Amino acid sequence: MGTLPRLGILLSGRGSNFMAIADNIAAGKIRAEIAIVISNRADAAGLEEARKRGLETRLIPSKGFEREQYDRMVVDVLKEKKVDLVCLAGFMRLLSAYFVSHFPNRILNIHPSILPSFPGLEAQHQALQHGVKFSGCTVHFVDENLDAGPIIAQAIVSILDEDTAETLSARILKEEHRIYSEAINFVLSGNFRIKERRVIQSSR
Amino acid sequence: MGTLPRLGILLSGRGSNFMAIADNIAAGKIRAEIAIVISNRADAAGLEEARKRGLETRLIPSKGFEREQYDRMVVDVLKEKKVDLVCLAGFMRLLSAYFVSHFPNRILNIHPSILPSFPGLEAQHQALQHGVKFSGCTVHFVDENLDAGPIIAQAIVSILDEDTAETLSARILKEEHRIYSEAINFVLSGNFRIKERRVIQSSR
Repeated sequence: MGTLPRLGILLSGRGSNFMAIADNIAAGKIRAEIAIVISNRADAAGLEEARKRGLETRLIPSKGFEREQYDRMVVDVLKEKKVDLVCLAGFMRLLSAYFVSHFPNRILNIHPSILPSFPGLEAQHQALQHGVKFSGCTVHFVDENLDAGPIIAQAIVSILDEDTAETLSARILKEEHRIYSEAINFVLSGNFRIKERRVIQSSR
Repeated sequence: MGTLPRLGILLSGRGSNFMAIADNIAAGKIRAEIAIVISNRADAAGLEEARKRGLETRLIPSKGFEREQYDRMVVDVLKEKKVDLVCLAGFMRLLSAYFVSHFPNRILNIHPSILPSFPGLEAQHQALQHGVKFSGCTVHFVDENLDAGPIIAQAIVSILDEDTAETLSARILKEEHRIYSEAINFVLSGNFRIKERRVIQSSR
C-alpha cells in the first residue's frame, strides 16, 4: 500500500467542512489522510472534534501576530507534518504571499456563494439582500486576495422567496460538503491544468 | 375581450430576444401585444425583422444626443404608443433617471450572466476568463445603473471545459429566450412585490 496524500486542515470555528472531509476519508471516498488540524482560535469547536476523532491538532493563536509572521509558524508546522494539500475550512484569515508561495496550487478554500459574486463575510446574507434567484458555493485555489483564486468546482442552490440566511445557509452547506470532497479528489488526481484562470480537466 | 398590455421593445442589434418575445406572443404564451419597436441604430437587423412581422417600428438615432435629451424622444414615443411595459432587447445604452422615472418598475432588461457577476459588455467572455463553472442569464428591472436593478428571474448554464464565448453564448441565449418571456408574464401578472431588492411573488 502506497503512502496516502497528506491533508492539512486550517479552521477557526466549528469546521463542518472539515468534518465532512474526515467522514469521506473514513468512508473511503477520499484517498488521503489528515496529517494535522490547525486552528488559530482556542475556542474552535472543530479542534475538539478533531481530537475526538484521534487526529493530531495544533493550536497556533493568531492574536498579536503580523500576517506573515503568523503564516511562517503555520507553514513550519505544515512542512513538519509533510502536508501535500492545505484545506481551509472556515479559516478566518487572509493568507500572505509567503504562505501561498510555499504551497503553489496546493491550498483550497470553500466559499458559500457563486464567486465572483458575494466574496467576504456573510455571503448568504449578501445574496439574499441582492435578491438573486440562485446562489451556491465555490471551491477555489487560494491566493493572497480574498476569495479570488482559480475556481475548481461550484454548485448551485435555488433561492426561495421565503428563505432566510439560516435556511439558505443550510441548503448551501449540504452542497459545500459534497463539492469540497470532490474538489480534493480532483486536485489529488493531478489530472488538470490551469490555463490563465480556468481549471481544466486533462484528457483521460 | 379586454385590451392587451402593450409592450415597447428597444433594440440596437439583431434583437433575438425581441424575436423570441414576438414568437411567444404569436403562440399565445404571452398575453400582450407589441405596440412599438424602437431602435437607436438604422442598421439594427431587429428593425427589419419587426417590419417583416408587420409591427410598427421607429428609428430614433442616438448619435450626437445627450443621454437625457435622447431619452425624452424615446419616452415621448413610448407614451404616444401607450406602452405599459418597456423591454430592452440588446439596447446598447444606459437609461437616464428621466426615462426610469417615467416607467417605474416597468422597464425590463436581460443580461447574459448570473448578475451581479459579469455586468457590462461580453459577459460570456468575462465568465470564461474568470473560470467559473456556471454562468447563465438574468432578467431585471432597469434603473440608472448598469445591469443593476432588482432581479426578476435567472437561469443557470453549466460551463464546459471546451466552451468558447460562442458555444457558451448560444446555450445561454436559449435560456434567455425562455426566462425573458416568463419574466414578462410574471411582471404583467402584477402578482409580486419588491422588498428592498428582492422581487417576491405574492401569495396566490
